[in-house]
Amino acid sequence: MTEERGSPGTARPGGRTAKTRAAVLAATFEALGERGYAELTMDRIAGRSGVHAATIYRRWGTVESIVADLFLDRSTRIPVPDTGSLAGDLRALARGIAAFYADRGHRALIEGAVVAAARRPDLAAVLGEFFEERRRETARIVHRAVERGESAADTDADEVMGALGAPFYYRLLIARRPIDAAFADSVAAATHAATLAGAYVLAAPAASDASTDDEPEPS
Amino acid sequence: MTEERGSPGTARPGGRTAKTRAAVLAATFEALGERGYAELTMDRIAGRSGVHAATIYRRWGTVESIVADLFLDRSTRIPVPDTGSLAGDLRALARGIAAFYADRGHRALIEGAVVAAARRPDLAAVLGEFFEERRRETARIVHRAVERGESAADTDADEVMGALGAPFYYRLLIARRPIDAAFADSVAAATHAATLAGAYVLAAPAASDASTDDEPEPS
Repeated sequence: MTEERGSPGTARPGGRTAKTRAAVLAATFEALGERGYAELTMDRIAGRSGVHAATIYRRWGTVESIVADLFLDRSTRIPVPDTGSLAGDLRALARGIAAFYADRGHRALIEGAVVAAARRPDLAAVLGEFFEERRRETARIVHRAVERGESAADTDADEVMGALGAPFYYRLLIARRPIDAAFADSVAAATHAATLAGAYVLAAPAASDASTDDEPEPS
Repeated sequence: MTEERGSPGTARPGGRTAKTRAAVLAATFEALGERGYAELTMDRIAGRSGVHAATIYRRWGTVESIVADLFLDRSTRIPVPDTGSLAGDLRALARGIAAFYADRGHRALIEGAVVAAARRPDLAAVLGEFFEERRRETARIVHRAVERGESAADTDADEVMGALGAPFYYRLLIARRPIDAAFADSVAAATHAATLAGAYVLAAPAASDASTDDEPEPS
């Protein structure tokens, strides 16, 4: 699927391929916002985008591939804040996530991305890597807090950022309840308290695997 | 779909219908454990269960419906602990969730349940209600902590239980990384610290909606 996009002459910025991609992704996002993931079909995307269904099939193959492409395209738009304090940064980031998912299209999009991952192991890997990269980017918040002495040096920044994001995805995909700024603030306060309490610490390099119970416990 | 199961004579315990259901659910769970959700098909379920595909189609209609049914059937098996302390209960419950999802079949099952919810609003409602009921059940942990004076009286037990579960679903569905007892202990410690820090408090009855910014803030 990517070889067509990656080959020279077909993917030049502003060229016909880039315009086709932009039209298809925009149409998909609009369709998701209006009718949700359950009613997203190739025909609907073709009709809205004005791109021939045959062209879409050739390039993406399935609705899942389009959704995965769109997800990667849009999810980088949540900014990484720098307010001067860990509490402020966590709160601003949580509010950014809440604002992102206030859009029905984005809610349908993450749902579609998880469906794509469930059906296609290759897309599952792409999704996992995207979120890993996203946690790495936002982990700067924690590194700065460590530099300022707000947080312990052995804080696991990846775990902190996972903890900040997790409650949003639980709400969206599992509990299926709305997200608002009050929820974002509660998530940020919880992540801050848990970080300061030492709940997210890097494992010591030589530590044994805590998932096994056959090691003697120090006591 | 449920009218057939609910009508008298077809759903009597131990009867043919109950045996068919048990065979189909067991076959689905085995297939999920072996090959994951991506390769789950009606034909595979029929072949494994020894139940005619036509019978399965008539009763469930789609793979999604079978997955939703199986999910509700199995997910009630995570016990609600009573260790005598909030920290101990949270840790035991988190370890119970981790043990449940150590089984590949259960990991494929929650993924399949989210797919079912994305494609079928009726199944989304069933999933949301199931987790609400599950949080209500496990909230006893928090109510007992309040009675013991470990936790403030205005602790939002529903939010605490959501916070305990969320990181597991984030790992499974989004980050797509393994879950072990060390992770469970970290989640339990984080939830405990955040609860004691007051991150999960019930909204005051007369408070204005914090999601709107057009209300004057008391200060």
